[in-house]
Amino acid sequence: MKKNTQIVLASRPTAWVEESNFRLQVSDVPQPGANQVLVKNEWLSLDPYMRGRMSDAKSYAQPVAIGEVMVGGAAGEVVKSNHPKFAPGDKVVGAMGWQTWAVADGGALQKVDASTIPLSAYLGPVGMPGVTAWVGLLDICAPKAGETVVVTAASGAVGSVVGQLAKIHGARAVGIAGGADKCRYVVDELGFDACIDYKAGNLRGDLKAATPKGIDCVFENVGGEIFDTLLGRMNPFSRIALCGLISQYNSEPYPMKNIGAVLVNRIKMQGFIVSDDLSRWPPALKELAGHVAGGKIKYRETVAEGLAAAPAAFISLLKGGNFGKQLVKLG
Amino acid sequence: MKKNTQIVLASRPTAWVEESNFRLQVSDVPQPGANQVLVKNEWLSLDPYMRGRMSDAKSYAQPVAIGEVMVGGAAGEVVKSNHPKFAPGDKVVGAMGWQTWAVADGGALQKVDASTIPLSAYLGPVGMPGVTAWVGLLDICAPKAGETVVVTAASGAVGSVVGQLAKIHGARAVGIAGGADKCRYVVDELGFDACIDYKAGNLRGDLKAATPKGIDCVFENVGGEIFDTLLGRMNPFSRIALCGLISQYNSEPYPMKNIGAVLVNRIKMQGFIVSDDLSRWPPALKELAGHVAGGKIKYRETVAEGLAAAPAAFISLLKGGNFGKQLVKLG
Repeated sequence: MKKNTQIVLASRPTAWVEESNFRLQVSDVPQPGANQVLVKNEWLSLDPYMRGRMSDAKSYAQPVAIGEVMVGGAAGEVVKSNHPKFAPGDKVVGAMGWQTWAVADGGALQKVDASTIPLSAYLGPVGMPGVTAWVGLLDICAPKAGETVVVTAASGAVGSVVGQLAKIHGARAVGIAGGADKCRYVVDELGFDACIDYKAGNLRGDLKAATPKGIDCVFENVGGEIFDTLLGRMNPFSRIALCGLISQYNSEPYPMKNIGAVLVNRIKMQGFIVSDDLSRWPPALKELAGHVAGGKIKYRETVAEGLAAAPAAFISLLKGGNFGKQLVKLG
Repeated sequence: MKKNTQIVLASRPTAWVEESNFRLQVSDVPQPGANQVLVKNEWLSLDPYMRGRMSDAKSYAQPVAIGEVMVGGAAGEVVKSNHPKFAPGDKVVGAMGWQTWAVADGGALQKVDASTIPLSAYLGPVGMPGVTAWVGLLDICAPKAGETVVVTAASGAVGSVVGQLAKIHGARAVGIAGGADKCRYVVDELGFDACIDYKAGNLRGDLKAATPKGIDCVFENVGGEIFDTLLGRMNPFSRIALCGLISQYNSEPYPMKNIGAVLVNRIKMQGFIVSDDLSRWPPALKELAGHVAGGKIKYRETVAEGLAAAPAAFISLLKGGNFGKQLVKLG
């Protein structure tokens, strides 16, 4: 009989996440109840927000309980269905967690077409990270043609879409990424106008050179010293979509000194979580699917093999070890 | 023959403003040219933004040049007019600077009715500070009835109007001020629901007690540690109208640690300058004039006597020595 492999939260991290914070367990494959669907997961998405769910600090979402399966988006195939909208063989995406099999309510799953777009892309540019990029860039920053957009973690699942969308909408796209390889990819393959390698040690000077007209929009995924430096280059009436602060998820917050720029330049800064307004997902996914199918939005994946590799891959993600979207390919 | 007394910028301050940064000079009373008006100033307004104009750091407005008359709003009486809309005896308000006589273009002056509202109030609750309060509170924070609004520098020219407007619009108003006297005034005379004396040494605990449902709107005039502490009490989807950062106009910026709250609680922070959108002034002034004439918005003034007292009064203002609107009574 087939077994379900799961990764549960074993303990809460105090600073950096360690593999000992997770525990792998094996149980029977669950059976779907009324209106439920049994899914064999094929891809697990790893995302920075999961660090927050491991902590019991007050946040926008409930923490994962100790002993509970780690939360996460996954994509897979329906094996058994008690829901009229799903049949065996359908490809679906949903919050199915870090496990190889999942039972989910049919209403919580999204059926996807994996014939024109690969299934894994529904966890990346045509999924939560893509919608995050779309909402932050187009709803919050709303760049005009010719304006300069700067995005941090530019080669990542969200950042890579931000810059390509900015170009599609007529703006200048400048990325910030860690390392020359990532920067080359961002410019040469994704088509950004410029990319700054923050590890090269000349952030302020490189930023000035890459943003000769200042910055009109910051899409912030990282926080810390980089964010503080960006604030000093922003134009009057510029906007900040505050999406993530990965640099301080595992450490004390960086002391920001340039908040005065928000006043002097009348900057609008807006924190957002993509799940707050589900009405934005259909128009976002429609645009993103078109760009991905048409090759206008490219993406890259870092794939870990097998559920047991998920903890190490997640820890690597938090340290910037991934290159593009971090996925786990399941059994 | 009458003489014009002026205060000019003698040197730029490096940290705290000193009286030696100003110089008093006497010159002939100027004569109005075509479409100009000669005004005898009666009241000079002193405002924190003037600290920025003394510095040549990049800002939203040109700095005052060395040797130039200090900028500032003033109220006075028309003595001679070459402009069809003004006649001798008219009371006017405008950016006439730190001087006893001023020549101004008629188009840059506002005629006011000093019969129902005292002339000086057009430099306070029915002038720039009042409009600042109105725009930041109603356009940016837009508090719903029952929400909690916190305003810093609550007994000042702007803060006092913010809290009273918040009450008029059905919100809970909590002030932060320096000293028990100011706090008593804010609660007992202005009608705020609570006031926290930040000098009492229990900011975090007092804030928690005064905001049992958290904070939905911060109207920020001060910055620094107080602002950082407020961030930690803010509710999901709350708003910050960033109006001033007086605590750091004369020193190094305070290192902010709670920017993460903007992300977790999806806060909107908006820096603003009241002169950015002049279309908001007429509706603001209409509402404010009604409330002041009707006694629903009260205000208090600290008055320095004579132009020569302006530098010391301005330095005191920057240190919180004023109580309510800081004015200089001229001639």
